[in-house]
Amino acid sequence: MMEIIKYPNKENWAALLERPSFKSQINEEAIADIMTQVKENGDKAVLKYTELFDKIIIKEMLVSEEEINSSSNLVSAELKNAINMAKNNIEKFHKLQFLSNQDKIETTAGVTCWKKTVPISKVGLYIPGGSAPLFSTVLMLGIPAMIAACENVILCTPPNLKGEIHPAILYTANLVGIKKIVKVGGAQAIAAMTFGTETIPKVYKIFGPGNQYVTIAKQMAQRSGVAIDMPAGPSELAIIADDDCVVSFVAADLLSQAEHGLDSQVVLFTTSLKVAEDVNNELKIQLEDLSRKEIASIALNNSKCIILENMDNVIEMVNEYAPEHLIIATIDEESIAERIVNAGSVFLGNFTPEAAGDYASGTNHTLPTSGFAKAFSGVSTDDFVKKITFQKITEAGITNLGPTIEIMATAEGLSAHKNAISIRLQKLKSRNK
Amino acid sequence: MMEIIKYPNKENWAALLERPSFKSQINEEAIADIMTQVKENGDKAVLKYTELFDKIIIKEMLVSEEEINSSSNLVSAELKNAINMAKNNIEKFHKLQFLSNQDKIETTAGVTCWKKTVPISKVGLYIPGGSAPLFSTVLMLGIPAMIAACENVILCTPPNLKGEIHPAILYTANLVGIKKIVKVGGAQAIAAMTFGTETIPKVYKIFGPGNQYVTIAKQMAQRSGVAIDMPAGPSELAIIADDDCVVSFVAADLLSQAEHGLDSQVVLFTTSLKVAEDVNNELKIQLEDLSRKEIASIALNNSKCIILENMDNVIEMVNEYAPEHLIIATIDEESIAERIVNAGSVFLGNFTPEAAGDYASGTNHTLPTSGFAKAFSGVSTDDFVKKITFQKITEAGITNLGPTIEIMATAEGLSAHKNAISIRLQKLKSRNK
Repeated sequence: MMEIIKYPNKENWAALLERPSFKSQINEEAIADIMTQVKENGDKAVLKYTELFDKIIIKEMLVSEEEINSSSNLVSAELKNAINMAKNNIEKFHKLQFLSNQDKIETTAGVTCWKKTVPISKVGLYIPGGSAPLFSTVLMLGIPAMIAACENVILCTPPNLKGEIHPAILYTANLVGIKKIVKVGGAQAIAAMTFGTETIPKVYKIFGPGNQYVTIAKQMAQRSGVAIDMPAGPSELAIIADDDCVVSFVAADLLSQAEHGLDSQVVLFTTSLKVAEDVNNELKIQLEDLSRKEIASIALNNSKCIILENMDNVIEMVNEYAPEHLIIATIDEESIAERIVNAGSVFLGNFTPEAAGDYASGTNHTLPTSGFAKAFSGVSTDDFVKKITFQKITEAGITNLGPTIEIMATAEGLSAHKNAISIRLQKLKSRNK
Repeated sequence: MMEIIKYPNKENWAALLERPSFKSQINEEAIADIMTQVKENGDKAVLKYTELFDKIIIKEMLVSEEEINSSSNLVSAELKNAINMAKNNIEKFHKLQFLSNQDKIETTAGVTCWKKTVPISKVGLYIPGGSAPLFSTVLMLGIPAMIAACENVILCTPPNLKGEIHPAILYTANLVGIKKIVKVGGAQAIAAMTFGTETIPKVYKIFGPGNQYVTIAKQMAQRSGVAIDMPAGPSELAIIADDDCVVSFVAADLLSQAEHGLDSQVVLFTTSLKVAEDVNNELKIQLEDLSRKEIASIALNNSKCIILENMDNVIEMVNEYAPEHLIIATIDEESIAERIVNAGSVFLGNFTPEAAGDYASGTNHTLPTSGFAKAFSGVSTDDFVKKITFQKITEAGITNLGPTIEIMATAEGLSAHKNAISIRLQKLKSRNK
């Protein structure tokens, strides 16, 4: 169960909040080799690695229209309804997030500046394979890509041993309007989207979670000039609870995080020794019934319950930890939420489980881990666009602003910058003579 | 002068637009060693490297209040006025860019989501040293940091041989409200802001240009968990010109870019052979009078003038190139600007030189180079904040949304996620019996 730490001194906080470092066993050179092979040999290399790692010979990497159409029959009506409800909520929230173009502003008479929001024209979404089909991530990445109106959206996901993609993934991808789904996973998928192959187009930005191979390949993609969504780390949940919490809910939420993986992080912050002990007892009971009991149990053993003197200390320590997810299960939770400055996504009150944000409430579930919430935001529609600044200066404008630029350029020792202004001012002067 | 390329076939575009790769001569291990030494030995290591690289023994790294106050007397009234005018323009534009908090949205009855914009509390600004004092970059990074209300802003810049910082930098930093200025440059400055030392606080995000040492150190900082502004590359300018351009202005603008450094990129796109030849002739004339003639001349020799059949081809090729800066000196420049989708910042018409955006028009001059404009935006106030999502679900809300989450979690094989919902729904059911 969780280790209970009572009233730690502030000088020990940093050490207590340090994320456990899982030493990567992965040979980075092997991944660099995959990147190079795919860059040089395209589809041929991709198919070779798919055979090697996914144990399947793929003839046609692109998912056919027939496969997409038949996927709908393979997903239960109940699941389809659930996915549709989630889609509507996520769409509502992500449309709201979206910046429209800004009004032009005249900063000096005759000097007009503005900004245009433009979709990133080619984006790649990576959806991991494995035991469970992560169709929720298809929603979380596909919906903002469609709202942003990215022209080319490609989804890569590994095939199973029969060379198929799970119908829930196909159904969801089709629902959000993704046209190009490719049966390829792992580092070879990232390599293909980085360099482009005969079948898989090169993209400008890659989104999506993945195992350590995928994470390292994404870092290499970044060094090759492709943007990525954000640095990846193990998933995390912190909960702030006081006597107003419902102990069984807190335990259930901690377990929902712990089942993600052996390296999942959960931390309970409380001012109440009773809450700490009761939650620990409840964890034992609830753990028994979980399908992923082994994973959750190991993750919990790495986890902490930290008891602090008062809520001020709790808030300070949580802001120092900067959790990916934060549940506030206390009295007067809104006033505590006001004081949270470092977190990916915050869940207020006893009836707001983190699982709601994972699936269907509307917010995005791709969030900064490992303390990156101090500087990074979760994925939003904004991540699928870039903004270009524009300016137009009239003859009157350069007359007004030109001398300022000349003086500054001269002071920075850049005479050609000054000349670019002077030559225009001279032209205007001679014309007005 | 520029190489003139006439009517290239589309299959050759990619090769023509490739940025020259300047093989780094830098020993990355030496920089990794600086990072480690500063991490382990703090100020002592920083001072050692300052002595080694900047040839000066610094006793007090922090710039004193006295130094800041006296800087004002060392800057001419003319330059102060110019800096003030630039500051006002940049402030106007960067305030406009700033997102206020969003309204709450009820995505499903009882499910409310919202987003809060929060300043990154600790940011570091790096201002390079060298022959010219880059006070313009102090404006471009300091103003958005202040508008975003970042709590701790630290500015690092290398001291000269007398152990001093140029007064124009001190004056500007003070003007925009930066309180902490440190006399340290190079990789050791980046290392200090990454790990923190006795004098220099650890920050969450590092902004600013620099030489190759600084660039590599920033990449290492990123791998140590510190965010950085964007990947850095040599500065670039593309110009689209037709017979409506003023040849001498185009030449002056190309030179203003070329003087930045030996690796500066300038490309002229035109539909007119006459414009190409006239600009090349004009470049020769104007080059003679430049203080940085040698640098500009070498940069120009690496540069290209590309002549294409029509404006459609020009626009397509420019979007493929994705220049950091783009000047459009043509007839009907606004309709061409509408079709630009990949560029950092765009300058419209004959009286809008790039130098205006470098200094004083209001837009930011920290922009994506090397084709990163396909996925990245220039620096804006948004880069100094992150956004935290929040949600609050009522009892009615979880009753409405809960079953959807249960179905989706089950389909993804995550039973503890389902439990976190079920336990709440059961509680409500038993209470309502």
